[in-house]
Amino acid sequence: MEPQELVQHLEGRAAFRADKMAKVDCFRSDRLLVGLNCFEPGQSQAVHAHAGADKFYVVLSGKANFVVGERTVTAVAGDLILAPAGVPHGVARAETRAVVLVAIAPAP
Amino acid sequence: MEPQELVQHLEGRAAFRADKMAKVDCFRSDRLLVGLNCFEPGQSQAVHAHAGADKFYVVLSGKANFVVGERTVTAVAGDLILAPAGVPHGVARAETRAVVLVAIAPAP
Repeated sequence: MEPQELVQHLEGRAAFRADKMAKVDCFRSDRLLVGLNCFEPGQSQAVHAHAGADKFYVVLSGKANFVVGERTVTAVAGDLILAPAGVPHGVARAETRAVVLVAIAPAP
Repeated sequence: MEPQELVQHLEGRAAFRADKMAKVDCFRSDRLLVGLNCFEPGQSQAVHAHAGADKFYVVLSGKANFVVGERTVTAVAGDLILAPAGVPHGVARAETRAVVLVAIAPAP
């Protein structure tokens, strides 16, 4: 499937790696990046922040422990995690295999 | 819950109107608008386009017939519908009650 295909079934686009979280691009312009972060159980994403860009995650499936600001929260399907510009965020640990939609504006 | 709350369970934020699709804001900055479009069965959203802004929908629950470009597609939970700047898009008809995440960058 082309990354810029206008209709995409997200679970079908998920891809996993044994060694670390896998990233999949779904759309990219100067204004917006949309992708997937795909975690095997126990995988993580280092806490980081984006200067001048707002980001959010939406958990599509699975369960993972997110860090956002000074909080750590366990999130499941249907949870939105917002990381406005400058707010530290990451994933401390995926408790199960997890597929997470991510969007960043403007694109990094 | 504050609109800018950093962690939001999206189904809990959904709201519906008897007369038309309901919109819920989840996050807004100059760079990014994140919200929900909430449909009762049979409700629609007129086809429109955004100049200079990229938009996407993710169906969180339910089933609806989306228009994007020259296509009409039936989308269900986990489907991503992309509407890059200038591409006409809308919802011809929700087949069931449906909750759809929407993001626009930059915010309108």
